[in-house]
Amino acid sequence: MPRISIDEFEELIREQVPFITSLGARLEALGKGTATVRMAGKPEFLRPGETVNGPVLFALADVAMYAAVMSLIGRSEMAMTSNLNINFLRPPPMGDLLAEAKMIKLGKRLAVLEATVFSKTVEGEPVAHATGTYSLPPESRK
Amino acid sequence: MPRISIDEFEELIREQVPFITSLGARLEALGKGTATVRMAGKPEFLRPGETVNGPVLFALADVAMYAAVMSLIGRSEMAMTSNLNINFLRPPPMGDLLAEAKMIKLGKRLAVLEATVFSKTVEGEPVAHATGTYSLPPESRK
Amino acid sequence: MPRISIDEFEELIREQVPFITSLGARLEALGKGTATVRMAGKPEFLRPGETVNGPVLFALADVAMYAAVMSLIGRSEMAMTSNLNINFLRPPPMGDLLAEAKMIKLGKRLAVLEATVFSKTVEGEPVAHATGTYSLPPESRK
Amino acid sequence: MPRISIDEFEELIREQVPFITSLGARLEALGKGTATVRMAGKPEFLRPGETVNGPVLFALADVAMYAAVMSLIGRSEMAMTSNLNINFLRPPPMGDLLAEAKMIKLGKRLAVLEATVFSKTVEGEPVAHATGTYSLPPESRK
Repeated sequence: MPRISIDEFEELIREQVPFITSLGARLEALGKGTATVRMAGKPEFLRPGETVNGPVLFALADVAMYAAVMSLIGRSEMAMTSNLNINFLRPPPMGDLLAEAKMIKLGKRLAVLEATVFSKTVEGEPVAHATGTYSLPPESRK
Repeated sequence: MPRISIDEFEELIREQVPFITSLGARLEALGKGTATVRMAGKPEFLRPGETVNGPVLFALADVAMYAAVMSLIGRSEMAMTSNLNINFLRPPPMGDLLAEAKMIKLGKRLAVLEATVFSKTVEGEPVAHATGTYSLPPESRK
Repeated sequence: MPRISIDEFEELIREQVPFITSLGARLEALGKGTATVRMAGKPEFLRPGETVNGPVLFALADVAMYAAVMSLIGRSEMAMTSNLNINFLRPPPMGDLLAEAKMIKLGKRLAVLEATVFSKTVEGEPVAHATGTYSLPPESRK
Repeated sequence: MPRISIDEFEELIREQVPFITSLGARLEALGKGTATVRMAGKPEFLRPGETVNGPVLFALADVAMYAAVMSLIGRSEMAMTSNLNINFLRPPPMGDLLAEAKMIKLGKRLAVLEATVFSKTVEGEPVAHATGTYSLPPESRK
């Protein structure tokens, strides 16, 4: 079982990361080292080309990886993104977006993950792909 | 002289990228291939550790590079981030943030830039550093 | 079927990329958008810590992605890496290394792939993970 | 003064990183947090397009950043690249290449640097730009 529950993670976000809450991102599924976050499109996310802007896709990938980290090490809100590399693959239209994160390597001090963002409007192919490194707080290293 | 003015860029953002407007980011300076964007800290940007969250720093670096692209090729809102790699160097406290972008290589189809984000509260050292690739719209390639 | 054969790809490398040939990297498998490259460890690849150095792992991931590109668009030696982001996950000991590349998104002008490098000595977990963008030559865009 | 000398660094490379020695890369200058590495072009580095291949440019950027790390923390051959992101900006012709590395942020456990690679044949504009994260060995953290 994941070492944090969906409810605990959502509460942590609601109380401590208001920016993510304001985007409307919700943790939909959590496995051991995996997490799926869903977000409904909103007109205020659009940029020229009638497509969702990059920072919103970044936020979605980042929060999904943050959840996947805690699925393995338990509640550790002090985990911090130290590097994130994102490729924008195709401009997603308005509509639901899904970020699926997966642990690549969990180390003692650093965790490396990847996240793929899908548009529910353009089925099948991903709209963004990210790789992230997270520094883990000392208390989480068991 | 830059090929877009600060006013034109700010109008483009106001009309077409509401998300950036909602962050309160403002273009402060524009050179030939350079741009500086400033943003005031807001409590809703904080994440655990009383520090500004990553997506906000990403947005700031991204919009500064977007402006630096247009400083050389003129108004081209269809320029799109294709890759962005960001290193978070130290957690910035609440307070003003400044992103300084600089063109590294302007090609016909792609532009590569870097942006450094500074905290006005912790003078001197950068809080984030990003490198971005932007795909340029055909009409801009003169 | 892949649009280039293993023999054709190996011949291209032998004739035109002597550096890769000198590393002893060989294309072992090729699918539609996938490629596996194998390389035997050599003492001259070691760096402090008795581990294979980063540039060799980079070369392996890069050539596997180059092959995976051609598996979908056919022989196109003018495909070029435009961006490569690599995370070194654990230091691989001497011994066989395997790079497995997979297409994430094939566009008209750019292809985005990922490659995972495994050590045959430390079974199971990856030693490096890379994401790469390749610019495709015009003649290949059919 | 830098905390390692050019001679000490070159000796370390000669004795412990034979791959870099075989490329013919030499440390040309060293400052506090900066390093310049030069390499002569060799026919065996070429790839299709009569241009120097990516792994060689990667190696050059990587070793320059490795030297710049030691310029600040002293001899620490166990410093290891944990992430390296490289943008290939234009294909460099045969001829001398120069990599200039610069520290962006030196932390206790991680250092973040950038390196720009220039071709001495195509004056002025860079041929590659890299950003790297290095994990620092415990003994170096004073």
